Amino acid sequence: MNIDGQAWRTIWLEADGRSVGVIDQTLLPHCFTTRTLTTCHAAAEAIQTMVVRGAPLIGVTGAYGLMLALQVDASDEALATAFDQLNATRPTAVNLRWALERVRQRVLPLPASERAAAAREEAALIAEEDVAMCASIGDHGLGLLQTLARARSPQRQEQPLHVLTHCNAGWLATVDWGTALAPIYKAHRAGLNIHVWVDETRPRNQGASLTAYELGREGVPHTVIVDNAGGHLMQHGQVDAVIVGTDRTTRRGDVCNKIGTYLKALAAHDNDVPFYVALPASTIDWAIGDGVAEIPIEARAAAEVTHIQGRDPAGAVNSVQLTPDGSDGFNPAFDVTPARLVTALITDRGVAPASEQALKGLYVDA
Amino acid sequence: MNIDGQAWRTIWLEADGRSVGVIDQTLLPHCFTTRTLTTCHAAAEAIQTMVVRGAPLIGVTGAYGLMLALQVDASDEALATAFDQLNATRPTAVNLRWALERVRQRVLPLPASERAAAAREEAALIAEEDVAMCASIGDHGLGLLQTLARARSPQRQEQPLHVLTHCNAGWLATVDWGTALAPIYKAHRAGLNIHVWVDETRPRNQGASLTAYELGREGVPHTVIVDNAGGHLMQHGQVDAVIVGTDRTTRRGDVCNKIGTYLKALAAHDNDVPFYVALPASTIDWAIGDGVAEIPIEARAAAEVTHIQGRDPAGAVNSVQLTPDGSDGFNPAFDVTPARLVTALITDRGVAPASEQALKGLYVDA
Repeated sequence: MNIDGQAWRTIWLEADGRSVGVIDQTLLPHCFTTRTLTTCHAAAEAIQTMVVRGAPLIGVTGAYGLMLALQVDASDEALATAFDQLNATRPTAVNLRWALERVRQRVLPLPASERAAAAREEAALIAEEDVAMCASIGDHGLGLLQTLARARSPQRQEQPLHVLTHCNAGWLATVDWGTALAPIYKAHRAGLNIHVWVDETRPRNQGASLTAYELGREGVPHTVIVDNAGGHLMQHGQVDAVIVGTDRTTRRGDVCNKIGTYLKALAAHDNDVPFYVALPASTIDWAIGDGVAEIPIEARAAAEVTHIQGRDPAGAVNSVQLTPDGSDGFNPAFDVTPARLVTALITDRGVAPASEQALKGLYVDA
Repeated sequence: MNIDGQAWRTIWLEADGRSVGVIDQTLLPHCFTTRTLTTCHAAAEAIQTMVVRGAPLIGVTGAYGLMLALQVDASDEALATAFDQLNATRPTAVNLRWALERVRQRVLPLPASERAAAAREEAALIAEEDVAMCASIGDHGLGLLQTLARARSPQRQEQPLHVLTHCNAGWLATVDWGTALAPIYKAHRAGLNIHVWVDETRPRNQGASLTAYELGREGVPHTVIVDNAGGHLMQHGQVDAVIVGTDRTTRRGDVCNKIGTYLKALAAHDNDVPFYVALPASTIDWAIGDGVAEIPIEARAAAEVTHIQGRDPAGAVNSVQLTPDGSDGFNPAFDVTPARLVTALITDRGVAPASEQALKGLYVDA
């Protein structure tokens, strides 16, 4: 997507054909810089320190990390070491393991002399597939938003279509387009009058920082709100639709996403606002039915609640403490929105109800 | 209530019998200081700069402000000037105007020589009445919490009773005890094993700063969470009750309170968690029936969304910017929770359903 008129992806092969460029996301939105990764170690560190984040982007970075390793030493031992090093950076990231495994299977049968080039090809392929999948989610979501816009009363037609989103499921979390934001970018580029309410998304504030940043750079009208405000806006007809991403989706359509998603789904349901989930197929967990009962929720560091990062008056990115000394915090990172609150899933294969039957129809029986 | 073992109120007459002491709330929770107000101008400034905040406390500060003015000049003109100066500090605070009016009516018929002493008496009376009302809310709420605690399964009896609260409706907002926190303090002092989930309450973070501070100083076990987390905790049986305050209550029992209250009420309803509102009678607006349709919601400065105050690594209280330059914020300060989501109102006259009939029974027909 665009940053001030110039097209960017989150990750790319540099002109030398051997090193990998990424956007450094740790200082966004206050400072835009890129990094060049030349070693497997640098790729692992970029994942671990969240220079890159978002499941699809982490997967592609891991794949390129194997390429960087094989360029130095393409032996079976070096491959195994690099695989383990990269995989250990985010042990629960299903997408990372999947991408690493895919590159390994591709290069293992080959002689050492051909392995680096094959890894390069496979990593690029994974990246292109992700872009195509996100673009497809965007196209299906665009149709939905156009229908919603037309269905409004003549009086409302003159106003922008107001879409609320939570956290960052944008192009910065993928290679390009994003998932929840893809329909919004497609709609904006198609000339639909659209405006986005951006939940700041405490505690890590990915909405206020990353979502606001990427919407702003692409020129999409948006307004940042605290996570508390969405219900009030829906009560007063100021939200036409909610679109969020998902980290894990059960076969019945329960959605595990950033903490607070469930509260927005409840408010949408209470006010007859459609609640959509943009679904990368890779997040479907066919082994799980009841998300609330069965998905374990990771608790992250309490410091993310008690402290917050921002730009201080001197222009430096710094952290301040919000709570009194002696008051502890608890920090569950995700919650589960039951399928009954989800109006529809926006997938790369079309829009479908959040149900086992619909998901199987799209991905198993197809 | 207690601060590190010593009993405090938020406002008091100093030993000289002429000046007024208050806790400076602007630097809490990072720095505890008091101020001595010796002039009407200082009282007005304390209200305006939020050295004191919370409707009941603002009212008492205004009443004492008139006393401070009359000690210098007890003429009709001086009284009128002081009244206008104090009333202008927070023009929408119903409670402030009511307290000022009460002191004025008391002193107007008196000769100038007796006015300052009468104002002192009336201000003290207003303060004592507020303490008694909050204590009474606490006693009625205590009964409710004891019943809830006993009704739990034998297995749950061994755990603390988990109460979630939003914003600060504690003793720092009143003279003593608070409203939503009064039942919690009463329960803690009565030996009930209680634990409070404190919503940080963006954007001004009154939960993370003031509620956490006062619970900590009184020794009540508590944990700060982001506003996004409450729904997840309720889904997993980690919340036994929600208690919040109210800024304005319609005759039908709709509750206008800090932004985000409505989302917690929805989650409580979805998970069969009782949702209580501690109701100071002064907040009832008999002229309004439907709160969502009829109560205008104040939008405060966007800077409260785009920036946040905390303690920086050097120990200074400072503000940091959270959003990218060029991204605007929108900041509605309150929302309305419909009466259908309120399990009961905890009033100084007892616990009652959130309905017109019940409110009239308590306050009109009684």
